[in-house]
Amino acid sequence: MTISQSILKGDRLALARLLTKVENDSTEGREALIELFPHTGGAHLIGVTGAPGTGKSSLVNQLALHYRKDENKRIAIVAVDPSSPFTGGAVLGDRVRMRDLSGDPNVFIRSMASRGSLGGLAQATANVVQIFDAAGFDIVIVETVGAGQSEVDIARLAHTTLVVEAPGLGDDIQAIKAGILEIADILVINKADRPGVENAEKALRSMLDLAHPAERVFRHHGTYMSTSMPKPGASSNVWIPPIQKTVSTEGRGIPELTQSIARHAEHLRLSGGWAIRERTRLEVEIEALIHEMLMNRFREDVPAQRYEAMLEQVLQRNISPWEAVRQLLNGRLQ
Amino acid sequence: MTISQSILKGDRLALARLLTKVENDSTEGREALIELFPHTGGAHLIGVTGAPGTGKSSLVNQLALHYRKDENKRIAIVAVDPSSPFTGGAVLGDRVRMRDLSGDPNVFIRSMASRGSLGGLAQATANVVQIFDAAGFDIVIVETVGAGQSEVDIARLAHTTLVVEAPGLGDDIQAIKAGILEIADILVINKADRPGVENAEKALRSMLDLAHPAERVFRHHGTYMSTSMPKPGASSNVWIPPIQKTVSTEGRGIPELTQSIARHAEHLRLSGGWAIRERTRLEVEIEALIHEMLMNRFREDVPAQRYEAMLEQVLQRNISPWEAVRQLLNGRLQ
Repeated sequence: MTISQSILKGDRLALARLLTKVENDSTEGREALIELFPHTGGAHLIGVTGAPGTGKSSLVNQLALHYRKDENKRIAIVAVDPSSPFTGGAVLGDRVRMRDLSGDPNVFIRSMASRGSLGGLAQATANVVQIFDAAGFDIVIVETVGAGQSEVDIARLAHTTLVVEAPGLGDDIQAIKAGILEIADILVINKADRPGVENAEKALRSMLDLAHPAERVFRHHGTYMSTSMPKPGASSNVWIPPIQKTVSTEGRGIPELTQSIARHAEHLRLSGGWAIRERTRLEVEIEALIHEMLMNRFREDVPAQRYEAMLEQVLQRNISPWEAVRQLLNGRLQ
Repeated sequence: MTISQSILKGDRLALARLLTKVENDSTEGREALIELFPHTGGAHLIGVTGAPGTGKSSLVNQLALHYRKDENKRIAIVAVDPSSPFTGGAVLGDRVRMRDLSGDPNVFIRSMASRGSLGGLAQATANVVQIFDAAGFDIVIVETVGAGQSEVDIARLAHTTLVVEAPGLGDDIQAIKAGILEIADILVINKADRPGVENAEKALRSMLDLAHPAERVFRHHGTYMSTSMPKPGASSNVWIPPIQKTVSTEGRGIPELTQSIARHAEHLRLSGGWAIRERTRLEVEIEALIHEMLMNRFREDVPAQRYEAMLEQVLQRNISPWEAVRQLLNGRLQ
């Protein structure tokens, strides 16, 4: 029995082994991915992103607990930490979570730390998600630490993206908010028992108004509140990100949040958005693979000596980087 | 006279025009870059990164004022904002700065917002830096908003990288700190008049101990304090990032910070580190150009129809992304 077959039969140990192989980008991992790919497409992929200090991990924990206890769904969590491996942050995250979720065979948590390039991390995350999907997990949550562009790029590959905020993180956070607001399907104000929650909500609402003029019209003309106007979170062609308040340490607001998530999935299926997101996600993956294979061929075809000599010319300012690349490529791909 | 010649003669208007051309990746911009490249290599490139709320922009402002007034150097500032264009953050940043620095022909400030891919932004930033370098600016400061991996990737292309912190930004910030600490040549605790500055410094020191065991040995054996042990910021083969405290709104600590920056440049030149950083930077740039040219050729060679048909096969789960790419590439590059 191949490793893929074991995984399709629910073998947890085989799953753990394959995840490692895929993270290390081994040939066996690649082959298993090819075998497993036809079995993907069943999972609801949920991305969770937001600034440090918003309590994302605790929120993801609560979501997983809810899906297990109240909906009997199989849950995989992929915690992506692009910061340096030497902090051990990813490993620590696992341990903290284990207290609530360990021992449950229908929960699988995988932490991924950066190794080398960030592009590599995004690709490895996509592969790990595919494996969980094929292995029959109903929900795969991809949580990214940090709120930079790259973390956002990883989170946005989900069907439903949650952007987590918290009150009182300072006004400067606004700049980041604006950038990631565009990718939010659902806005979560976590730690909603803290002072400043009204201000945080007000700020988010006015940013939503900027990003979604439809809602502004809707709210300015309250009397037109009818089925023809999109309601926040309603299943129409326009999805306006609802704002959900939670206190994840106490589990408050979690059922409402999961209802929002379910409504978003329904909206995507009815509006055709689900297929569009699938297409986008696979296109991004294909593009990354094309890049990788083209670069591999380049390295095979251009002798290291030739590359080094050209680099030396650039360092001496004899030729520009652009000219160097033109010469390197004309040598073979004409 | 070509645009490059005008720029080499100090024409500010030509410089502004070329920056726009290069940002738009026009053919004329590319040609000018090739012409200007032999004139690069004279500038000291300083990267400034750190979380929102640390007062980076104000700090950069003060650095520029100091270099102008006390050292009579020509300064270019490239403010990179990868967040969404709709916030207008980049433009706003320019205006705030103008009050102190406008009208001075030896200061040039350029804001760069994200347009499309982040890889594109990194490349555009590298190009803009090259133009300033060729145009004879002594110091080019690249400031990135945010503290994600991608912002760090941009900032680390500098000769000297400043990581800016501030007291009281919360413990959760630690996770980010650890990641960017590795790229810091100089650590700045800005807003050092705020409570919590001792704790912030202590936290940074213990993280430095983790990252630089040499310093730990040095500090545990105080009696061995001799020239054989690296002193923080000293010109030896090991550079231990000094911690500089500043209050940028009042200009406090700025002269000390610029001294640290000068010591770092001297260290790089004596230790050979300068050449290593130049090489790394140009290698990254060459790799990005190779990627770009290979992808362009791929798009020229593979008909859109064929690509679309293959993507459809993947969406139907008939073949895996990996298999699709293999088939697309075997069609031509065998």
